[in-house]
Amino acid sequence: MHTFEELSTLFSEKFDIAHFPQEPHTLYEPNNYFLSLGGKRLRPVLCLMANELFGEINQDAWNVACAIELFHNFTLIHDDIMDKAPLRRGKQTVHTRYNESTAILAGDVMMIRAYEYINSIDISLIQRIMHLFNHTAVEVCEGQQLDMDFEQKEPVTFDEYLKMITQKTSVLLAASLQMGGILGGGSLGNLDLLYQAGKKIGLAFQVQDDYLDAFGDPEKFGKQAGGDILANKKTFLLIRALETTTGAQKEELEALLKGNTPDKIARVLKIYRDCGVDDWAQQLKTRFLNEALEHFDDMAVLSKRKLPLKALAQKLVKREQ
Amino acid sequence: MHTFEELSTLFSEKFDIAHFPQEPHTLYEPNNYFLSLGGKRLRPVLCLMANELFGEINQDAWNVACAIELFHNFTLIHDDIMDKAPLRRGKQTVHTRYNESTAILAGDVMMIRAYEYINSIDISLIQRIMHLFNHTAVEVCEGQQLDMDFEQKEPVTFDEYLKMITQKTSVLLAASLQMGGILGGGSLGNLDLLYQAGKKIGLAFQVQDDYLDAFGDPEKFGKQAGGDILANKKTFLLIRALETTTGAQKEELEALLKGNTPDKIARVLKIYRDCGVDDWAQQLKTRFLNEALEHFDDMAVLSKRKLPLKALAQKLVKREQ
Repeated sequence: MHTFEELSTLFSEKFDIAHFPQEPHTLYEPNNYFLSLGGKRLRPVLCLMANELFGEINQDAWNVACAIELFHNFTLIHDDIMDKAPLRRGKQTVHTRYNESTAILAGDVMMIRAYEYINSIDISLIQRIMHLFNHTAVEVCEGQQLDMDFEQKEPVTFDEYLKMITQKTSVLLAASLQMGGILGGGSLGNLDLLYQAGKKIGLAFQVQDDYLDAFGDPEKFGKQAGGDILANKKTFLLIRALETTTGAQKEELEALLKGNTPDKIARVLKIYRDCGVDDWAQQLKTRFLNEALEHFDDMAVLSKRKLPLKALAQKLVKREQ
Repeated sequence: MHTFEELSTLFSEKFDIAHFPQEPHTLYEPNNYFLSLGGKRLRPVLCLMANELFGEINQDAWNVACAIELFHNFTLIHDDIMDKAPLRRGKQTVHTRYNESTAILAGDVMMIRAYEYINSIDISLIQRIMHLFNHTAVEVCEGQQLDMDFEQKEPVTFDEYLKMITQKTSVLLAASLQMGGILGGGSLGNLDLLYQAGKKIGLAFQVQDDYLDAFGDPEKFGKQAGGDILANKKTFLLIRALETTTGAQKEELEALLKGNTPDKIARVLKIYRDCGVDDWAQQLKTRFLNEALEHFDDMAVLSKRKLPLKALAQKLVKREQ
C-alpha cells in the first residue's frame, strides 16, 4: 500500500513523458507547457488507490490514471478560456500565453489522447471503463455549463449549487475511484460505495475551497482571500448567506453585491460571520467527509487497505491551501 | 446496394434523433440547432458504402457512421470559432448565435457523444476502430493547426499545402471508408486500398473546392466567387500561381496580395488564367480522381459492388456547388 505522497510521486514519474509528437510544435508545445505546470495529480492517485484496495496496482490502472489526468487537464484548458482566467497555478493559462484558437485545439487533442490511453487497456474492460468515462465527461461539461448559467441566474438555490458542483467536480473524483475499483475486480457493491464516497469527497473539497477563498490565511492559501466575494461568485457561503439573512442584514448583503466598494470583502465577511455561515460551512464539510468515510467503512475490503484513502480524504478537507 | 442519395436519406432518417438529453438546454440546444442545419452527410455515407462492399450494411456500421458525423460536426463548431466564421450553410454558426464559451463546450460534448457510439459496437472490433478514430482525430486537429499556421507563413509550398489538406480533410474521408471496410470484414489489402482511395478523393474534393471559389458560377456555387482571393487564403490555385509566375506578373500578384483594391478578384483571376492555373487545377483534380478510381479497381471485391463508390467519387469532383 502507498500513501498519497508516494503515489503522487510514482504517478508523476510515469506521467512526465512525451504524450504528444514533436510536430506541429505550435499545437503540442502548448500542451507540454500546460502539463509541465504540474498539480497534485489527485484524480489519477484516487484511481490508483482504489485499484490498490483489491491488490497490487495493475498496468491498466496506470493507463486509466493517465487518461483521467489528461482529461482533467483538457477541461482546465477549455474552462480557463471560458472563465477568461489569465493564470493557473500562478502561471499563464494556455490561451493567454498562446492564443484562444490554439487553446481550443490543444484541449481537443489532449482529450483525444486520453481516449487512446483508455483504448490500451484489457479488451474485456474497455466498454465498461469507456462508458463510465464518457458518462462522467458529459457530466463535467454539463456542470461547467451550469456554472456559467449560474452567473446570470438569481437566485441559485443550495440544491442547484450542490447539483452543479457534483457534476463539475465530484463525479470525476467518484469515477476515478470507481475506475480503479473496476480494474481491480471490485464487486458491484464495493464499486457503488467507491463512487458515493468520491462524490462526497468532492463536495467536502468544494466546501473547503469556498471556505478558504473567504476565510483562508492568505499566506498559506497562496492568494488574496476574498476573490470569490469580489467576483460575486456563487459559492456555498454566499448562497447560504442569501438564504439565511433577513431584514437589514439581507438588504446590506444585496447592496454590497451590486457594487465593488473598497470595504466589500470585509463587510461581506462580517455578514458571513454574523449569520454563522463560517461555522455552517465547517459543519457541512465535516458531514460530507464523514459520509465519505462511512462509505469506505461499509466496503467489504480489508480495513488496513482502506487507510490511505481515508487519510487522503481527511487531508483534502483539512488542507489550508 | 445503394446510391449516395439513398444512403444519405437512410442515414439522415437514423441520425435525426435526439443525441442529447433535454437539460441543460443551454448546452444541448446549440448542438441540436447545429445538427439541424443538415449537410450532405458525406463521411457517414462513405462508411456505409465501404461496409456494403462486403455485404449487407451492419448495425455497427450505422453506429460508427453516427460517430463520424458527430465528430465532423464537433470539428466544424470549433473550427468556426477559430476561423471567426459568422455563417455555416447560410445559417449562424454556434458561437455567433450563442456565444464562444457555449460553442467550445457544445463541441466538446458532441465529441464525447461520438465516442459513446464507437463504444456501442462489437467488442472484438472496438480497439481497432477506436485506434483508427483517435489517430484520425489527432490528424484532423493537426491539419487545422497547420491551416492556421499557414496564414502567417510565407511561402507555403505545394507539398506543405498537400500535407495540410491531407490531414485536415482527406484522412477523415479515408478513415470513414476504412472503418466501413473493417466492420465489413475486409482484408488488409482491401482496407489499405480504401484508405488510399479516400485520401485521393479528399484531395480531388479540395482542388474542386478551391477551383469553385475562384471560377465557380456564383448562382450554382451559392456564394460570391473570389472569397478566398479577397482573404489571401492559401489555396491550390494561389500556391501554384506564386510558384509559376515570374517577372512582372509575379510582382503584380504579390502587390495585389498586399491590399484589397476593388479590382483585386478580377485581376488575380486574370493572372490565374494567364499562367494556366485553372487548367492545371482541372488536371490535378482529374489525376487525384483517377488515382482514387484505380484504388477501387484494385480491390478484390465484386466489380458491381464498387459502382456506387465510383459514382460518388466522380460526382464529388464534378460538383458545381
